[in-house]
Amino acid sequence: MSYDVVPMTEEGIPTPSIITRGANEISGIDTMIIDSGFVQDPAIPFIKTGLGAARDGSKEKALPGYESALAYGSYLGALIDNKYKFIFIGESVPGGTTTAYTVLSSIGIKEMTSSSMKTSPDGLKEAYANKAFLRKARSENYSENISEFGDYMMAMALGISKSVKKSTLFYAGGTQMATVFYLDSVINNPVNRYVFTTGYIMKDKEKLM
Amino acid sequence: MSYDVVPMTEEGIPTPSIITRGANEISGIDTMIIDSGFVQDPAIPFIKTGLGAARDGSKEKALPGYESALAYGSYLGALIDNKYKFIFIGESVPGGTTTAYTVLSSIGIKEMTSSSMKTSPDGLKEAYANKAFLRKARSENYSENISEFGDYMMAMALGISKSVKKSTLFYAGGTQMATVFYLDSVINNPVNRYVFTTGYIMKDKEKLM
Repeated sequence: MSYDVVPMTEEGIPTPSIITRGANEISGIDTMIIDSGFVQDPAIPFIKTGLGAARDGSKEKALPGYESALAYGSYLGALIDNKYKFIFIGESVPGGTTTAYTVLSSIGIKEMTSSSMKTSPDGLKEAYANKAFLRKARSENYSENISEFGDYMMAMALGISKSVKKSTLFYAGGTQMATVFYLDSVINNPVNRYVFTTGYIMKDKEKLM
Repeated sequence: MSYDVVPMTEEGIPTPSIITRGANEISGIDTMIIDSGFVQDPAIPFIKTGLGAARDGSKEKALPGYESALAYGSYLGALIDNKYKFIFIGESVPGGTTTAYTVLSSIGIKEMTSSSMKTSPDGLKEAYANKAFLRKARSENYSENISEFGDYMMAMALGISKSVKKSTLFYAGGTQMATVFYLDSVINNPVNRYVFTTGYIMKDKEKLM
């Protein structure tokens, strides 16, 4: 599926969020925006957590509020569990494929992540991860690695998953959400979890599935 | 029911919210905090709307974002309708009994509201309402009166009610929530709405029930 025009706002800003919004409105899907480290608040209702942006994991611990993010996610998961049959978690994290790569790498999985850019800056990601591991040695503990090198979307999603016991939870996206799915399967050992993604990712990242 | 000690936080701040929290935790009731004009964000997850505090209705239009508050409430109501059998709306609005009194007065209902203070400052409330009506004449239109003299809690509650069609909605509180119940019954003409309150309010405010 592709369009022969670029989707744009009335002000001329090109963004795929227009397609997402259209799909949500037509389908009647209920959506909830969760602050997993917002730098700036959106101008529509959303769940504010005040976690603040993640830090630069190559220089310092990335998620000082890791435990809070887990607890907030757990609270939110409990609110929606068994209220909706299907729950989909998506993300929009600047630099998120880099943190996903770094966390995967920290737990010994050598899989490059994709990018929103035409050419994935693989070299930059590797350099970032190497710098981070020089700052702080990788741990055997998955949660510790996430709090050192990850992003708050991961922590929030893991917290949500912790409380979702009756609904079916989908990680909807690409290599980042496949990474969270994998972390979740190891940390939370949940049931009814799926990755909602493309055939390309399924083939390319079968280690995570 | 009363305690022989004042409920206090560990830092010594006396607040009935400790009893509320205890009751919520023991009962397992799901709670969601909604920003209906917060001046300051709480340090726990909540629904941020960014409406900003209501203005002083005796000096200017109280709710410049009245329509937004309705729309936000409607969005939130749709999220929870039919997901929970019972929905309770409560409030904590500084000066909220004054805005409730003023709105009631604006629609021709001469009922004094209660107060969190030992002695309700009835004279102050009446003076406030009179000043507001000098600034802006009362309208036949209920919604216009709310936007001129009310508070965002009213608008948010009315928006929620607009979308709640299958769950049963309770206005839980005193004279303020009885006021919203009354406004809702006129504006939205809903079914399955109740006031969850004390026998004192039931007897004293039967005009609103």
